[in-house]
Amino acid sequence: MTGRDGGAALAPIGNSPVVILVRPQLADNVGAVARAMGNGGLFELRLVAPRDGWPQAQAWRTASGADRILDAATVHATVADAVADLQHVFATCPRPRHIVKPVLTARGAASELREICGRGLRAGLLFGPERAGLDNDDMACADALVRYPLNPGFMSLNLAQAVMVMAYEWWSAADTTPPRELMTNETVVATKRDLENFLTHLVAELDASGFLRNQPKRPGMVRNIRHLFQRGEVTEQELRTLHGMVSELAQGRHQRGR
Amino acid sequence: MTGRDGGAALAPIGNSPVVILVRPQLADNVGAVARAMGNGGLFELRLVAPRDGWPQAQAWRTASGADRILDAATVHATVADAVADLQHVFATCPRPRHIVKPVLTARGAASELREICGRGLRAGLLFGPERAGLDNDDMACADALVRYPLNPGFMSLNLAQAVMVMAYEWWSAADTTPPRELMTNETVVATKRDLENFLTHLVAELDASGFLRNQPKRPGMVRNIRHLFQRGEVTEQELRTLHGMVSELAQGRHQRGR
Repeated sequence: MTGRDGGAALAPIGNSPVVILVRPQLADNVGAVARAMGNGGLFELRLVAPRDGWPQAQAWRTASGADRILDAATVHATVADAVADLQHVFATCPRPRHIVKPVLTARGAASELREICGRGLRAGLLFGPERAGLDNDDMACADALVRYPLNPGFMSLNLAQAVMVMAYEWWSAADTTPPRELMTNETVVATKRDLENFLTHLVAELDASGFLRNQPKRPGMVRNIRHLFQRGEVTEQELRTLHGMVSELAQGRHQRGR
Repeated sequence: MTGRDGGAALAPIGNSPVVILVRPQLADNVGAVARAMGNGGLFELRLVAPRDGWPQAQAWRTASGADRILDAATVHATVADAVADLQHVFATCPRPRHIVKPVLTARGAASELREICGRGLRAGLLFGPERAGLDNDDMACADALVRYPLNPGFMSLNLAQAVMVMAYEWWSAADTTPPRELMTNETVVATKRDLENFLTHLVAELDASGFLRNQPKRPGMVRNIRHLFQRGEVTEQELRTLHGMVSELAQGRHQRGR
């Protein structure tokens, strides 16, 4: 959502699948496709019979800096020509009918593409024109179809969005980021001893203030306070802030009490 | 990529997260966001201080039929107002810095959102403006940040693309489609007996034609032919076609031999 990146960042990373747009209509979409490819680490673009010819300046305007992908794009007269040097071809297809062919999810396709490309084989992904999608002859050129799991009640998917999902899955298939991690930057998560020091400080001031004066309820109240602060990972910096807050609040009371 | 769907298909499916666009600039993007939401089964849209006011006719033009989502969108002066009735808020953020907060992948966030929404709690997803992204005050309203695994060399992500990835992950988190399955439609995968019948037919005709006349090599050649036809799932319809092809090819030879 932010930033524009130089062409150097768009150099191919290893052996990645070729994106093949079949009879694309709008240059806007071709540019947006190039941008989505860059986002997901796909770098080689081929165009089969683009409706308005090629190149189209408008594509570079919507590519948001993914110029290098557009500069290197090649144009082909037929799907057969565009896939001639490839060893595996997958075709995205929202609703295949009367076709006997393996159907992959986007995630399944990404996983297989990583395996195929990892063996040094060249793979391609076919995407159909904006309105009609791939026709039966196009799909006959593919080893397998790719169908995304999406709301069947609203499958109208923009071309660049279709490429985005596949590019995202391609990148994700090699990503090892844990699903949840605490971002701590310059500070670190506090140890239990540090947390205990703070809780001792807090409870002492609460006792002094009279907040915990109901002796029968006091143990439960203290336990609930402990639970609250134990719930998330508290950082050392946050503990320093909390110590300061408690001290200042208590000091105000002490001063008024004087 | 194909089809336009009626508004009825865009009725909310269960309890799904609210999409909150913070200070969006372009009506084109708001419309494209609505379309991506429909694709991924998200239905409630809120706009915080849209730059050019609201409504904007252009948004409906780029929504490709996701009108119902735009019709129901609400406008809010501040992020705090837009999230006031929600119980969990996640903020998408390509590169968080100096923030101590859990960071989720898109997939991790989708999994947690399914769990949260499944408990009947209301959740929201914050997306920042096109260029600047969310600011520090926006992010302070969130329980966790969401960062997508994408090419760090080219992170410039279109707003609608950012929503598409999250909507796709939301839908996928509840999807149980196997990563690969054979699409057979009206026909079914042939049994091994049917396949064996065809191979017997084929080998008999190959014997008759003289193709397998090299007796020392014959067993290996027959085995290779068997391997070829065993490699994929062959359907009953395809076996009928193969029987016909072999019969016709052999008949031509028989006729020429007469």
